[in-house]
Amino acid sequence: MPAIMSARLKIWLKRLGLLLALPVLAVIFAIGYVSVKIATYQQLDDAAHMASKADYLKSIARAAPDKAPDLVVILFDDLGYGDVGFTGNQIIATPHMDGLAAKGMVLENYYAPAPVCSPSRAAMLTGRLPPRAGLTHVPFPSGTTFDRLNRFFGNPVRLPREEIVLADILQAVGYETAMVGKWHMGDHAGSLPTQFGFQRFFGTYYSNDMNPFTLVSGTADKGEAISHAAPFDQTQLNRLYAESAERFIAEAATDKPLFLYFAHNFPHVPLYAAPSEKGRSDAGLYGDVVQGLDDTVGRIIAALKQRGRFDNTLILITSDNGPWWEGRGVGRGRKGVSFEGGIRVPFIAHWPQQIKPARSAALAMGTDLLPTMLDELNVPPPPDRVLDGKSIAASLRGGASPHEVLYHYAAGTLMAVRSATHKYRDRKAVAYPTDPVRLPIWQAHGPWLFDMRADPQEAYDISMQQTDMAARLKAQLDAKNAEMKANPRGWK
Amino acid sequence: MPAIMSARLKIWLKRLGLLLALPVLAVIFAIGYVSVKIATYQQLDDAAHMASKADYLKSIARAAPDKAPDLVVILFDDLGYGDVGFTGNQIIATPHMDGLAAKGMVLENYYAPAPVCSPSRAAMLTGRLPPRAGLTHVPFPSGTTFDRLNRFFGNPVRLPREEIVLADILQAVGYETAMVGKWHMGDHAGSLPTQFGFQRFFGTYYSNDMNPFTLVSGTADKGEAISHAAPFDQTQLNRLYAESAERFIAEAATDKPLFLYFAHNFPHVPLYAAPSEKGRSDAGLYGDVVQGLDDTVGRIIAALKQRGRFDNTLILITSDNGPWWEGRGVGRGRKGVSFEGGIRVPFIAHWPQQIKPARSAALAMGTDLLPTMLDELNVPPPPDRVLDGKSIAASLRGGASPHEVLYHYAAGTLMAVRSATHKYRDRKAVAYPTDPVRLPIWQAHGPWLFDMRADPQEAYDISMQQTDMAARLKAQLDAKNAEMKANPRGWK
Repeated sequence: MPAIMSARLKIWLKRLGLLLALPVLAVIFAIGYVSVKIATYQQLDDAAHMASKADYLKSIARAAPDKAPDLVVILFDDLGYGDVGFTGNQIIATPHMDGLAAKGMVLENYYAPAPVCSPSRAAMLTGRLPPRAGLTHVPFPSGTTFDRLNRFFGNPVRLPREEIVLADILQAVGYETAMVGKWHMGDHAGSLPTQFGFQRFFGTYYSNDMNPFTLVSGTADKGEAISHAAPFDQTQLNRLYAESAERFIAEAATDKPLFLYFAHNFPHVPLYAAPSEKGRSDAGLYGDVVQGLDDTVGRIIAALKQRGRFDNTLILITSDNGPWWEGRGVGRGRKGVSFEGGIRVPFIAHWPQQIKPARSAALAMGTDLLPTMLDELNVPPPPDRVLDGKSIAASLRGGASPHEVLYHYAAGTLMAVRSATHKYRDRKAVAYPTDPVRLPIWQAHGPWLFDMRADPQEAYDISMQQTDMAARLKAQLDAKNAEMKANPRGWK
Repeated sequence: MPAIMSARLKIWLKRLGLLLALPVLAVIFAIGYVSVKIATYQQLDDAAHMASKADYLKSIARAAPDKAPDLVVILFDDLGYGDVGFTGNQIIATPHMDGLAAKGMVLENYYAPAPVCSPSRAAMLTGRLPPRAGLTHVPFPSGTTFDRLNRFFGNPVRLPREEIVLADILQAVGYETAMVGKWHMGDHAGSLPTQFGFQRFFGTYYSNDMNPFTLVSGTADKGEAISHAAPFDQTQLNRLYAESAERFIAEAATDKPLFLYFAHNFPHVPLYAAPSEKGRSDAGLYGDVVQGLDDTVGRIIAALKQRGRFDNTLILITSDNGPWWEGRGVGRGRKGVSFEGGIRVPFIAHWPQQIKPARSAALAMGTDLLPTMLDELNVPPPPDRVLDGKSIAASLRGGASPHEVLYHYAAGTLMAVRSATHKYRDRKAVAYPTDPVRLPIWQAHGPWLFDMRADPQEAYDISMQQTDMAARLKAQLDAKNAEMKANPRGWK
């Protein structure tokens, strides 16, 4: 072999060696990373606050007063702001929701607390922002690859047992409680719906695109068990959920108020409609599914009227985040991002005895529901923890918003602060036109300040022009981040 | 060591071995992949078609007729459909463009041929869809990491020399030609602006977020050379481009028509405005930049009027794709995707002698510009290649669109087919809510059919309801794919 060849060969062998060394180093790093992650994996359940939760629920326990309203919270999955008649849709007919909207309060600046399912639900049911509620990401069925990935990255996979859910409180103050539909805050013993104040549960622990998609049924006394094994025919889902809701309302004691949390899986993909529901809208299967959901709202209304206390029934209808694949959102972005399209969702509050027909631009967020019910029922808040939501009891009656600003979180990160007039997006939230994807790119963008009146599409950053407003909102963002860092779960 | 320990150790060593084997296999695969890529790397320049190009240009060479209009094509970079007054923007003032729009033809369904810079430009200037023109991806400065990645993945990095650009044709038929602004179709000898029919060039080969960002100046006779080295102060860009355009118009021979291709780098990020341009809009720096661009349009108009043949000057104004970070698009999506927001762009055609004030919903695409000019000048098309665009000379005068459908490409892939009433998105285009990102996900979505009249937001798939229309458009998509596969570059 000539010397020149040998020298070249050496260079190439050296290069090959380097090439092989890199992945070996990567594997060593990964092993180290996993070890550290496993070592520091946070045990969620906090014995001290499980005890103080029990004390609190005991302290508020009483027979519900006569005037306590029935409460029905209807939460749709991935329903877009523009998918319903009362926000202007003309090719999907939603007469039952439109009827409630016409006689109730429609909040036009109501936000889901997160742009994806589980954190949004956890925040709505606890009155606490997703990091406070300890659930910032979407759990997957235990033991699946995505579940392992969640654990690998240290993401929480269920609602911690010390969290206090609206149903815990309402049950304690004498309500008969039930949940129908999608839980999606863990499938683990200790984090199941009937362990958070729901006396009955019929539904699923997961999104309807997750495997195995099974339906579960149970009570707080007897526990939960699979009632419809996978593969389950989802064209039956709407009927089964409607029947379950009707049955609960029909069977509920008439001397107690009821709380029904009706969290439908649709219009989250995959979409299914029963033959009788198909072909009715001008918006394809998605429209048919939404019209099927509206039918179910109609059946729930009918059951509530049958029960005979409809005038003192508060019905809330909303969505957990913006539309995903299909569906009509509002402004910029879709599910998963904290632009308007990911988080501004339809909202109706209907309560004949208390709420007059109106529309309002008052700021509100899902976290407000629990504080609002505490307010309506004159129940003190839990003394051991921060609630991030505020009572919008006045807003629902035409009053102003209790919020100077709202805080928009995605994937556990504070992305933006919204005032009545402006929205400030943090620099890290705009490192890519969509968030929460953040790429190490060549150029810094943001922070961004939007004037939500002149620029509802969030198209034009005015942070360098309206510097006072930008500074004011940045200060609130920084303060919130500091507060969260010092006390992530908000224990007092 | 106890036997049980030893057995466990063996299992762990086996696991570690597997873990190490995987990356080694990956490296071996990568080496193989690169070898194949390098071996099959397509040499772009095609000697036979370079010769037939020369023959064609020779065959059409003549002194321009008296009636030949001056042509000014103004292309902005990432300007959104909604960023200008004539499409409804009320916080950015664009009086010069609005003035042309009011007296010219505004096409409301005009599409960029691709949702990103370079393929859109290549298609517009050649009248051929991006794969035909041989430029489906965005080139980066030669020798940079991104350039190497492009080459690694086998992406084209420049316009092939055999392509015939509008300037080649206009120069051949007696126009005086110049380009000012962003080329972005290669920085390689053989693929430079003055090698494609532009007698003069002042501008840049790159996007203004690429390094090194230098300005280049040159002529077809003497070649091109850097005139403003990096780092270049981009607050000067608008002034320099305007002055260069003014100078060309003022110096152009009066006995020949002129062709100016004015391809401004803005409002592509990063945004810069001169002190005199700052703070004038209510839409932040982005709005100020757009108002600066409008000023430049005003200066070009003034120079053209000074030249004295404004009545026979055709001015076309448009954008290369939808808005990116900031900016107001239309409908769903932004730059990079083939939803409306990525590809529907503003379009004005102003030509006092020929075009009456009007707005039209006729379908058109950037690929139509070259065939339209051939039509206006009565020049035969090149005989050796397919042109995908069609003359919209009639549409510009209020007539119907020549297109039964438009074909929307992204990253070299046919994503959607658009008819006057519907849009069909191919299954592979909707594997993720944005495209062209395609993930191997757990569930198939699409194909999607949208009714663009009832559902301009592309929110509701009706492919299972309007099966005839879906089948009709799918057949056209399949036929186009087959045609492209059989003859990607469209040689006759």
